Amino acid sequence: MTTNTDALRVDLGKRSYDILVGEHLLANAGQYIPAAAGRGACWIVTDENVAPHYLDMVTGSLRDAGLAVRNIVLPAGEENKNFGMVERVVNAVLDGAPERTSTLVALGGGVIGDITGFAASQVLRGINFVQIPTTLLAQVDSSVGGKTGINTRHGKNLAGAFYQPRLVIADTAALDTLPQRELLAGYAEVVKYGLIRDAGFFDWLEQHGRAVIEGNLDARIYAVKTSCAAKAAVVAEDERENSIRALLNFGHTFGHALEAETGFGSEMLHGEAVAIGMIMALNLSVRMGLCPAGDLDRTMAHFSSTGLPISVSAGGDRKWDPVTLIGHMGHDKKVRDGHVTFILARAIGDAVIARDVNMAVVEDMLRRAIAA
Amino acid sequence: MTTNTDALRVDLGKRSYDILVGEHLLANAGQYIPAAAGRGACWIVTDENVAPHYLDMVTGSLRDAGLAVRNIVLPAGEENKNFGMVERVVNAVLDGAPERTSTLVALGGGVIGDITGFAASQVLRGINFVQIPTTLLAQVDSSVGGKTGINTRHGKNLAGAFYQPRLVIADTAALDTLPQRELLAGYAEVVKYGLIRDAGFFDWLEQHGRAVIEGNLDARIYAVKTSCAAKAAVVAEDERENSIRALLNFGHTFGHALEAETGFGSEMLHGEAVAIGMIMALNLSVRMGLCPAGDLDRTMAHFSSTGLPISVSAGGDRKWDPVTLIGHMGHDKKVRDGHVTFILARAIGDAVIARDVNMAVVEDMLRRAIAA
Repeated sequence: MTTNTDALRVDLGKRSYDILVGEHLLANAGQYIPAAAGRGACWIVTDENVAPHYLDMVTGSLRDAGLAVRNIVLPAGEENKNFGMVERVVNAVLDGAPERTSTLVALGGGVIGDITGFAASQVLRGINFVQIPTTLLAQVDSSVGGKTGINTRHGKNLAGAFYQPRLVIADTAALDTLPQRELLAGYAEVVKYGLIRDAGFFDWLEQHGRAVIEGNLDARIYAVKTSCAAKAAVVAEDERENSIRALLNFGHTFGHALEAETGFGSEMLHGEAVAIGMIMALNLSVRMGLCPAGDLDRTMAHFSSTGLPISVSAGGDRKWDPVTLIGHMGHDKKVRDGHVTFILARAIGDAVIARDVNMAVVEDMLRRAIAA
Repeated sequence: MTTNTDALRVDLGKRSYDILVGEHLLANAGQYIPAAAGRGACWIVTDENVAPHYLDMVTGSLRDAGLAVRNIVLPAGEENKNFGMVERVVNAVLDGAPERTSTLVALGGGVIGDITGFAASQVLRGINFVQIPTTLLAQVDSSVGGKTGINTRHGKNLAGAFYQPRLVIADTAALDTLPQRELLAGYAEVVKYGLIRDAGFFDWLEQHGRAVIEGNLDARIYAVKTSCAAKAAVVAEDERENSIRALLNFGHTFGHALEAETGFGSEMLHGEAVAIGMIMALNLSVRMGLCPAGDLDRTMAHFSSTGLPISVSAGGDRKWDPVTLIGHMGHDKKVRDGHVTFILARAIGDAVIARDVNMAVVEDMLRRAIAA
C-alpha cells in the first residue's frame, strides 16, 4: 500500500470488509480488489460524469492486475436511480455470462453505488460488490453500511437491498474534480457524525472544516477516516437498523421531505436537504426543551462559515407548506405503527431517537422555519 | 391447529421458520400468520388462476384474525416472472404506505412465490414474507429455502434474492384443484428427494406414488412432509448453495437447458424438464461407470408407471440439438470457472457433485437421448 493509506474494518462477521482511505488509490485499485473479492471477471459501473476522469485509470489498474474487465457507463443523476436502470445493469452483466465469483465495481457517487450494489445483490442472487466512491458524500456515507436502493414515485430509497461490499476504496484525490456544491453537500454528512455522537469531532471541524472543503489533503483524509469509522461502528452494532443505526438518519426525516417536495433533483441536493434538516431537528430539540439553544446557534454558525445552507429560504422562490412536508414524512421508511420517528439531540454529539413527538410542535417549527 | 397438521422447522438461526403441512390450513391462515410475522398490514399476492379458488378464503381468515388485508392479483404464467412484474408488486405495496412490520403473502405456485418473495425482499429493503404454496411443485420445492427470482432473456432465475419466509403454509387440499399435468410436474421434484439422498423414500414412492398422484390424503401429506423435511435439512446445512445444496439441482442442469430451448413456457413445464433431466443425469452417470444401469432402469420404470416423461421425444416434433443444449448450460448459474457443474448419482439415493465431466460424453449421451 502507499503511504497515507489506512484500512478501517467494518466488523460484520462473515460479511466483514475493509475501507481503504488515502490518496492514489484509484490508480492501484487492481492491487486491492483480488485480495477482497477474488480474481473473477469485473464489471465497472460508472456514469458519464465520472468516466472521463477515472474510468481508464481504474480499468487499466485492474487489467494490469490480470483481471478481465468490462465497463458499463450510465447517464448521471439521481433521476436515474430507478428500477429501469438496475434492470439495465443486471442485463448488461448477464450479457457477459457472469459467474458467482464475478465482481461489480461501483465507480462514482451515491447514485452509482446504490444502483450497482442493488444490481450486484440480484445477479445470480448475489455476486461480489466493490465500492469506489468518488464523491465526498459517497465516501463518508453511502458507500459504507450496505444500504442499496432506488427511488420510486412514492419517495426515495423505498426499494432496495441490504448488501455489503467486499471492499470500499475511498481515494481523497477523487474529490479534486468534484464540483464545489457537491463537495459541500457531502460535508453535511461529515458534520452529522460530529453532531450525533462525537462532540470532539465537531470541535475539530469548527477548526479544520474549511481546510477539508478547500482541499487540504491531511484534513480530508482525517475527516473521511473519522466519518467512515463512525459509520462503521454504528453499522457493526446494528446492521439492519433495528436500533442505534437510526441515529444516522439525523436531519434525514426533514431532509427527505424537502427532497420529496423538490423532486429529488438538482434544485436541492441530498446533502443540502440534510443540512437544513439537521438545523430543523436541532430547532425542534430546542423547542421541546431537550437541547440548549446555544448548540443550535453554534451549529448554524459553523454551517454558515463553511457555506452550508441553514434554511429553505436560501433555496429559491418555491412556496413551502408545513402540512405538505409532514405528509411527505408519513411516506418515509422510518414510520413505525403510524408514528414518524425523529432523531433529536440533547446536545452537540448526543443524538437520540424519539418516537412520540407532538406533530403540532413539528408543524409550528416548520411554519417558522419556512417564514424565516 | 387442526388434526393432521405438522410443523417442520427450517433451522437458519435468527431466520428460522416453520413449514406447516396438512389439510384445511388455508381457511385458518389467519391463526398462523400473526405468531410468525406479527400483526402488521398484509398484502396477499396471487394470480388469476388461484384467486377464484382460494383468495376469498384466505383474505377472510386474515380479516377474521383482525389483520388489515389488501389483494394484488397478477396474470398467471411463467412468462410473467420478470422485472416488470416485481416492480408492479413493489409499487402496488408502496401505494398502501407499508411499514417495516408489514407482510407480503404469496398465495399460489412457484411463479407467485418467486415474484412475491423478491418483491418482499425489496420493499423498504425487506418486509415480512409468508408463503402459501398451492401447487405440489411449490409445496415441496420452491416455497422452502428462500430462493426468489425472475427470468431474463438470458435464462431462468438469473436475477433474484436469497430471502427467507417467516412461515410456509402447505395445505394439501389445495392440490385438489390443480390440473393433473401440473400435479405430475410437481411429483418430479418429490421423486428427486428420493433419488438424491433417500433410497427408502424412493422405495415408498414406488409403492405409494400413484396414491399421491391420485389424491390419497395421507399419502399426499406424507410425501409433502418428507420432501419439505429433506429440503429443509439441506437448506439448513448450506443456505447459500456453497456445497451440499447443489444436490437439489439434480436433473436441473439438463432441465434448464430443455426449458431454455422451449422458451420456459407451457410446451415443457419445469417439472417435466426436471424429470427428463434426471433421467439424463442418471444416463450420464451410468455411461461414466458411476452408477449401475439397473438404477436407471428402475427410475425410468417408476416415471413411466406414474406418467412422468423420460425423454424429449415425448415432447412433440421439435428438433433438438445437443450442442445447442450444451450452449444453454453455459449460461446456467451453476457454472464455475467456466466448468458446468453436474449432479450425478452413484445409485438411487446417492447423488454427488461433479465438476470435471467430459463434455464429449455429455454430448454423446444427449445425441442418443434425443434420437431415442
